[in-house]
Amino acid sequence: MRRILQGLRRLVFGQPIATDALTPVTLRTRLALPVFGAGMLSAVAYAPDAVVDALRRGSQQGAIPYMAVGVVSIMLLLGFAYRSNVRARPDNLGDYGTVRDLLGRRYGVVTGAALLVDYLFTVAVSVAAVTQLVAYLIPQLRPWVGLIGVGLIGVMTLVGLRVVRDRARVLLAVWFGFLLVVAVMLVYGVARHAAEASSPIAANPPTTWTIVLAYAGAIASGAVMVTGIEHLASAAPNHAEPRARRAGRTLLIAVSASAAAFLTVSLLAWSYRITGWADGPILLQTAEQVFRQPVTIWVVAVAAAAILYAAATAVFRRFSILASSLARDAYLPRQLSMTNDRLVVRGGILTVAVASAVMVVATGANVETLIHMYVVGAFAAIVLSQVAMVRHCTERLQLATEPGDRRRLARDRVLHGTAAVVAAGVWIIVAVFNFLNGAWLAIVMIIGLVALMHAINRHYAAVRGDVTLERKDRNVALPSATHGVVLVAQLHRPAMRALAYAKAARHSSLEAVGVQIEADAARELQRQWGKIDSGVPLVILDSPYRDLVRPVLDYVASIHRSSPRDVVVVYVPEYIVGRWWERFLHNKATKRLRSQLLGLDSVVVSAVPWHLESARDRRAAEEVPPPGEQLP
Amino acid sequence: MRRILQGLRRLVFGQPIATDALTPVTLRTRLALPVFGAGMLSAVAYAPDAVVDALRRGSQQGAIPYMAVGVVSIMLLLGFAYRSNVRARPDNLGDYGTVRDLLGRRYGVVTGAALLVDYLFTVAVSVAAVTQLVAYLIPQLRPWVGLIGVGLIGVMTLVGLRVVRDRARVLLAVWFGFLLVVAVMLVYGVARHAAEASSPIAANPPTTWTIVLAYAGAIASGAVMVTGIEHLASAAPNHAEPRARRAGRTLLIAVSASAAAFLTVSLLAWSYRITGWADGPILLQTAEQVFRQPVTIWVVAVAAAAILYAAATAVFRRFSILASSLARDAYLPRQLSMTNDRLVVRGGILTVAVASAVMVVATGANVETLIHMYVVGAFAAIVLSQVAMVRHCTERLQLATEPGDRRRLARDRVLHGTAAVVAAGVWIIVAVFNFLNGAWLAIVMIIGLVALMHAINRHYAAVRGDVTLERKDRNVALPSATHGVVLVAQLHRPAMRALAYAKAARHSSLEAVGVQIEADAARELQRQWGKIDSGVPLVILDSPYRDLVRPVLDYVASIHRSSPRDVVVVYVPEYIVGRWWERFLHNKATKRLRSQLLGLDSVVVSAVPWHLESARDRRAAEEVPPPGEQLP
Repeated sequence: MRRILQGLRRLVFGQPIATDALTPVTLRTRLALPVFGAGMLSAVAYAPDAVVDALRRGSQQGAIPYMAVGVVSIMLLLGFAYRSNVRARPDNLGDYGTVRDLLGRRYGVVTGAALLVDYLFTVAVSVAAVTQLVAYLIPQLRPWVGLIGVGLIGVMTLVGLRVVRDRARVLLAVWFGFLLVVAVMLVYGVARHAAEASSPIAANPPTTWTIVLAYAGAIASGAVMVTGIEHLASAAPNHAEPRARRAGRTLLIAVSASAAAFLTVSLLAWSYRITGWADGPILLQTAEQVFRQPVTIWVVAVAAAAILYAAATAVFRRFSILASSLARDAYLPRQLSMTNDRLVVRGGILTVAVASAVMVVATGANVETLIHMYVVGAFAAIVLSQVAMVRHCTERLQLATEPGDRRRLARDRVLHGTAAVVAAGVWIIVAVFNFLNGAWLAIVMIIGLVALMHAINRHYAAVRGDVTLERKDRNVALPSATHGVVLVAQLHRPAMRALAYAKAARHSSLEAVGVQIEADAARELQRQWGKIDSGVPLVILDSPYRDLVRPVLDYVASIHRSSPRDVVVVYVPEYIVGRWWERFLHNKATKRLRSQLLGLDSVVVSAVPWHLESARDRRAAEEVPPPGEQLP
Repeated sequence: MRRILQGLRRLVFGQPIATDALTPVTLRTRLALPVFGAGMLSAVAYAPDAVVDALRRGSQQGAIPYMAVGVVSIMLLLGFAYRSNVRARPDNLGDYGTVRDLLGRRYGVVTGAALLVDYLFTVAVSVAAVTQLVAYLIPQLRPWVGLIGVGLIGVMTLVGLRVVRDRARVLLAVWFGFLLVVAVMLVYGVARHAAEASSPIAANPPTTWTIVLAYAGAIASGAVMVTGIEHLASAAPNHAEPRARRAGRTLLIAVSASAAAFLTVSLLAWSYRITGWADGPILLQTAEQVFRQPVTIWVVAVAAAAILYAAATAVFRRFSILASSLARDAYLPRQLSMTNDRLVVRGGILTVAVASAVMVVATGANVETLIHMYVVGAFAAIVLSQVAMVRHCTERLQLATEPGDRRRLARDRVLHGTAAVVAAGVWIIVAVFNFLNGAWLAIVMIIGLVALMHAINRHYAAVRGDVTLERKDRNVALPSATHGVVLVAQLHRPAMRALAYAKAARHSSLEAVGVQIEADAARELQRQWGKIDSGVPLVILDSPYRDLVRPVLDYVASIHRSSPRDVVVVYVPEYIVGRWWERFLHNKATKRLRSQLLGLDSVVVSAVPWHLESARDRRAAEEVPPPGEQLP
């Protein structure tokens, strides 16, 4: 049974990977594009919907082209700014590293928290967008979108736990496949539109306030297109040499391609007067208008679902890597930095899986709701990162002497400054206009995370200070004596074994101790103890409130009072079970006793295992090592 | 903070009670009636509904009086039978004890399982009935009945954990109050009915099959009135002397009073042509017709809710007592038999609370659904108990010589035999006709419980056989030597303390062991170790798959291979934290290591505690014992 489980585990998660087997990943632009650019491109599947919807609410559909061009401008501005990021610091690992190194740990933590929240929402939005595609194609599945989303996240989790690197070639097909689909849509759409010559949408005259709201909403939604840029920029170390130039090129190509796709879908939606969301994803509605062929809509949907899935899995990995960096900097629990036998950071993947599943279920896999919570985190990181780069340029400028360098640095500083101001503007618009729609949740999450990470960091720092070995601690005084105390509930073989081990340890003094809950049982224990003639005295402790733990604690404390410099070693027999459900039948009191005893000073709690038959059987079955462990 | 919590705990749960403070409860009939008879009387609040509803479905409302008389006959028959139970065995603790002692453990377990399921449903039905009363009085609360039910169960749980004995006087008021309300209803109802002289309901001519279904359903539902009888019969040991006679009297009075109340409500409902359920609880509908005064309906509702609440709390206690008996007979996990410092069996109360809350929520607090699942368990126990009594009489008959005794025993045997046959008939009707309505669930639960209890019993028996000390085990050979192994992750003070304690223990050999995950860290550890000059060699174990546990296990196993008769004592430094959330930041690897090490033979795992500052602060705060512990 356990062998089968082991085999299954290997099948699902793969063979273990030795530390030595890991060579650094270096990709060429062609492969880096799909691996790290899926996030940005996939936003084309839901960002146009949000922009069109926001404008429709203010009856400003006529402004769609301007708004689309505005979004594309922001994308290109930040694209150039991040290219400069990447070129200046090709070894950085994303905005967290940039801000931490250039602005200090305090801002670094804020960036880290903002990015974690951003990644979380990226997964949730991408998954929700896939379920919306499914619900559009097969309306009968609409009531089950939450379940489908959770199922998808489950699959991603398994894959995330198994796979160290994506299959670059598959991702390549997914990435260019989606671009191709959009390009074909563009050609068909323009041709058909020219032939039919429909008139553009006339804008109604609404109030100024609705117009402002509509434009703000559209900018906030369009900003979704930019959120993938940090992921792209973080990929610089994974590029083959010349890293800096190559990574910059990847970044610009990915941004341009995504911008073009976004522009195509937005403009097609505008010219076909698609109003969005209420009737389904704009991408599919547009495809329906353009191709008027059910088969092609399925093709578009599959291409979109594939890129969304790729984006979500990439962000899964990215989340766990960032969490691991934060854990290594002692801002998150240490276990989040530990890799398993497949070199995967398991804790982070499970965290993001659970959190995004909660998000998807809580919002009913509703892209519209999620998108409003989404952009706040990403833009906070972008603003901080650009500010950091401004400082970086300023510092370098003070050191630079050559005119060419100085000119270049001054130019970059203007670029980063502009990017920072624009990003900050977008951030404020998003935070203000989407606040009640859900941005408050993202802000609360970021603030909560920052507080949590500071608390964790303070804790670890305090512990480090506490445990660090100083010169004076080097010659620890040995305890003057060790007292052995064997806990004896009944006179059975586990207790006798504990007694034997305790005797073999040759303590300065040794006693057996029993707790009296019922007077009869205690007398019987004493009678039996007399018979075995162990040479060890038995002390019976009275327990008027039927508590097993308190009397033992008091007894150990009394030993400490009479000889404060001694150590008390308490031997506790413990049943070891072989089947999971047997755990509920044993050791309840033992566990409580152990944890309370460990609260005392100068005490050692020694567990003496007694293997029940099921545990012995299990061990016998395990003697043959499972297949995975036989590797050299 | 902890002191406040401690104080709060004492306030909610009360002062601890010493074992000696417990004197046996002995009640006179007047007080025993409400304490143990609440369950049966409270069924009047929902049983008539089920009977009337079943007959209405077959258009057999005309048969209500006959059916009511039939139910009352069954009640009286079983009342006399159980009086004989109680008189013959005044010390028995309910049907579980009776069946176990007379028919053997195998049937005893079935009875125990059936009763546990019965109690569970009693709580669920009673709580659901209270919520129906509330929903009838305040229709706006109807959507929240599930929540109200869970809240009620929460209150009962707190009370159940605090209170050792019910306040008999309060129960007395509740019990006789309800009877009084029903009596007044009878008087008013008859008077008003005579004055208005409405004609009886005319029965339509339906098919034979619907009639059979209607009658079967009515019997199955009416049987609900009898389920409380086991609880009454189990109370014999709590009666003052002369126990047997007094307990028999209590039982008969309680059964008669409940039967009268049932008859009253059923006949009033019949003569006022109340059709039940769809429009609200029959008790309240009838009261509305009889009194035509909103205030009186509130009075009736409060009286009914009080008796239902009393019944549910009594069954709470009864469940935990039965669970404790079963645990003491090793059929349930041992911790269910442990009493806390208030002498309350906590495990059972929490179990029944959670399970009944699940029931209430899952059925939406629907009495109709619950009642169909309900009767199966109770009647299984009744049948088995009556069969057991038949055997009891037969055995006594073979020994009896005096004619008077023989006549009495023969008469009792007929009584018990008839009761067994009638109860079996009802059981079959319930099981067959309610099977699809929910009885299947109760049957599945009983079968599952029986299987579980047998598995637990087999396990405990196997363990007992395994650990029992035999003569040959008395002189356990001492291990020939003890090897000390100190786990050293880094060279910090916790590790140094563990090393000092290990040195003080004077093992035959002592080594420090570190696991190499990263080569640099391992080298650094080795360098520092060289500096401290501890006199103990440091062994670095390689871990190609970054696992901390496996290399240590292999190392300990290698020591055992070279010296099989020795014990290996592994010292594991463990961080002790003072705040709950700090637990997530420490000891993850330690826990895994500990549990895997304990799977080895001839090993002792010694935890050496290192108290973090928060734990030291907490201990300092606890030095002053909390108020409850200062009792003599």
